[in-house]
Amino acid sequence: MTDPAALTATLIRCPSVTPEEGGALTHLASVLEAAGFACTRVDRNGVSNLFARWGDKGHARSFGFNGHTDVVPVGDEAAWTVPPFAAEERDGWLYGRGATDMKSGVATFVAAAVDFVTETPPDGAVILTITGDEEGDAVDGTAALLDHMEAEGERMSVCLVGEPTCPERMGEMMKIGRRGSMSAWFTVTGVQGHSAYPHRAKNPLPAMARLMDRLASHELDRGTDHFDPSTLAVVTIDTGNPATNVIPAQCRGTVNIRFNDTHSGDTLSDWLRSEAASVAEAFGVKIDVKIKVSGEAFLTPPGPLSDLIGAAVQAETGVTPELSTTGGTSDARFIKDHCPVVEFGLVGQTMHQVDERVELEQIHQLKAIYARILTDYFA
Amino acid sequence: MTDPAALTATLIRCPSVTPEEGGALTHLASVLEAAGFACTRVDRNGVSNLFARWGDKGHARSFGFNGHTDVVPVGDEAAWTVPPFAAEERDGWLYGRGATDMKSGVATFVAAAVDFVTETPPDGAVILTITGDEEGDAVDGTAALLDHMEAEGERMSVCLVGEPTCPERMGEMMKIGRRGSMSAWFTVTGVQGHSAYPHRAKNPLPAMARLMDRLASHELDRGTDHFDPSTLAVVTIDTGNPATNVIPAQCRGTVNIRFNDTHSGDTLSDWLRSEAASVAEAFGVKIDVKIKVSGEAFLTPPGPLSDLIGAAVQAETGVTPELSTTGGTSDARFIKDHCPVVEFGLVGQTMHQVDERVELEQIHQLKAIYARILTDYFA
Repeated sequence: MTDPAALTATLIRCPSVTPEEGGALTHLASVLEAAGFACTRVDRNGVSNLFARWGDKGHARSFGFNGHTDVVPVGDEAAWTVPPFAAEERDGWLYGRGATDMKSGVATFVAAAVDFVTETPPDGAVILTITGDEEGDAVDGTAALLDHMEAEGERMSVCLVGEPTCPERMGEMMKIGRRGSMSAWFTVTGVQGHSAYPHRAKNPLPAMARLMDRLASHELDRGTDHFDPSTLAVVTIDTGNPATNVIPAQCRGTVNIRFNDTHSGDTLSDWLRSEAASVAEAFGVKIDVKIKVSGEAFLTPPGPLSDLIGAAVQAETGVTPELSTTGGTSDARFIKDHCPVVEFGLVGQTMHQVDERVELEQIHQLKAIYARILTDYFA
Repeated sequence: MTDPAALTATLIRCPSVTPEEGGALTHLASVLEAAGFACTRVDRNGVSNLFARWGDKGHARSFGFNGHTDVVPVGDEAAWTVPPFAAEERDGWLYGRGATDMKSGVATFVAAAVDFVTETPPDGAVILTITGDEEGDAVDGTAALLDHMEAEGERMSVCLVGEPTCPERMGEMMKIGRRGSMSAWFTVTGVQGHSAYPHRAKNPLPAMARLMDRLASHELDRGTDHFDPSTLAVVTIDTGNPATNVIPAQCRGTVNIRFNDTHSGDTLSDWLRSEAASVAEAFGVKIDVKIKVSGEAFLTPPGPLSDLIGAAVQAETGVTPELSTTGGTSDARFIKDHCPVVEFGLVGQTMHQVDERVELEQIHQLKAIYARILTDYFA
């Protein structure tokens, strides 16, 4: 039996702050190879990733797990109760950066998969894609692994991402989709001048205020059966003019949108550009818009995969998980183009925080859930 | 005959960037004392000022001139065609920092006053108040001179400020009042959070956008017989949040108001605070307001003083000056509490700019105007 808590502790001790590999993937590869997994390091642009398959390539029943071993920086190390890479245990909790997000998740699905293929070798394949670039730009992480799989003819039939998904109580939530995310940077340019003679200048700030007010007060939608309403957050407006007697020439503002599947990056980009153009015309200023769509909204509609996971969670915890699409983005946004994907993992309350920690009991419970999912999938 | 152009050149060569005296007031005192003026240096908090009186203290007919010898910094010295403190002549123009604002004005009224009291000693007094702190905070400049006069029982019956007042053509404008000026600093405080979960945060930016839009689009008034409409300029909005996935806790914005005599600093402060309170309530955020009124609006209604100046300008230039209240603030805002005050001077197109310069002919014309004003006043 592979101990998922011990494996989590070993991973925490690898200082794998994005994009450092920190020894984490190397260690996992050794554990997996010992159990008969064929492992391939898929490194791209300084980022390390691990592809591992047990069973035949291209098998029609290929169950996939996805996760990441990279972690966010520790922040103020002096504020931690324990050293962030020491993996110390206290009162049934394991402390360290990545304890919940998501070295425990990776350790747990690796432990479950290793024991499963060793004890009850299935007629099928188990595929693990583990990235070192989820917390960073994510362009050379899971995306690189999927490119590698595409090139090599590797396929997953379904995929479970092991990110923490439960807000407070183990088992209460899985994610069957994610909202999309995009940011837009607006630069309003007018004509500089003296505050005493505003008619000789063209102040960009009232246009910026009007534009941001319009964007922030617009109702994008009222949500759908599976999605919360889309949201727009104005995240910054900046001018940098210290002089009260000067009307500045330029002002910059940024918004971030989290959108459900009633929108796409394209439809929202059109809307943003049209609002900017309308305000620019009304105020006689120039407004440049730069947009980056970091992920489209997607949904794996409730069906066999979510049923499988829901039943396993219910059997192990007595809790029926909600099918949710809340939260930020995850690598599921890449996988959804490859196969049906659902996310389920432990309680993520301390992720990205000082004193990030995981309850040891939860790790063992999660392993039991993942093991049952594998058993039921190949039954 | 005192040459006002030579005196201007001498003053330009004194590097009197606020608050440096640079030798300017010392030189003027020597010129004035030689003509029988009683001179007193009125220095306060590191700022130098000069009080000079010819004739009896407290005389019922005391004509005052006011001006400043301090200048703004030269800016990018490499961009100047000539060294900014060299006072070089080119094609009938005298170049240098302060050439128009307002060493020429000071030199000219000093030259006119010296020649006038020497050639035709009047039954009355001529009082010159010259400050080294007009371009700075102005709290220890003309204000200090007026405090000194109050303490010493010195009075001007009327006062002419020699600031440049003509937009393009010599003689076309005098100023009989000035708009008030005030700035307000708003700090909107909400609750920081993650862009993906805006309902858990309280974003200060939509409130700031709404507030600035409301302030900027409000019509303060439509002007009066003597004043242009009051204006409000949003001069900066700043947040300093580089992260698109973070909703910031705080945002700061500043407005500058130039207001006519239908308002006061108090009525406008009340309005600003009330708008802020209303937006704060609507958005559930906290808005702090800090206000500084740097000058109240004032008017010296058309009458004997503006008639006197208008007639002299008309006689010397053939142009009838408009009675205006446009522009920024000047030290007339302090003098208006002491006696009727009007401003008249030369064309100020290059003030505060690189290659600031004055037409030599204009200096002589201005001296003739100031001389005629003195003659007519004491006639």
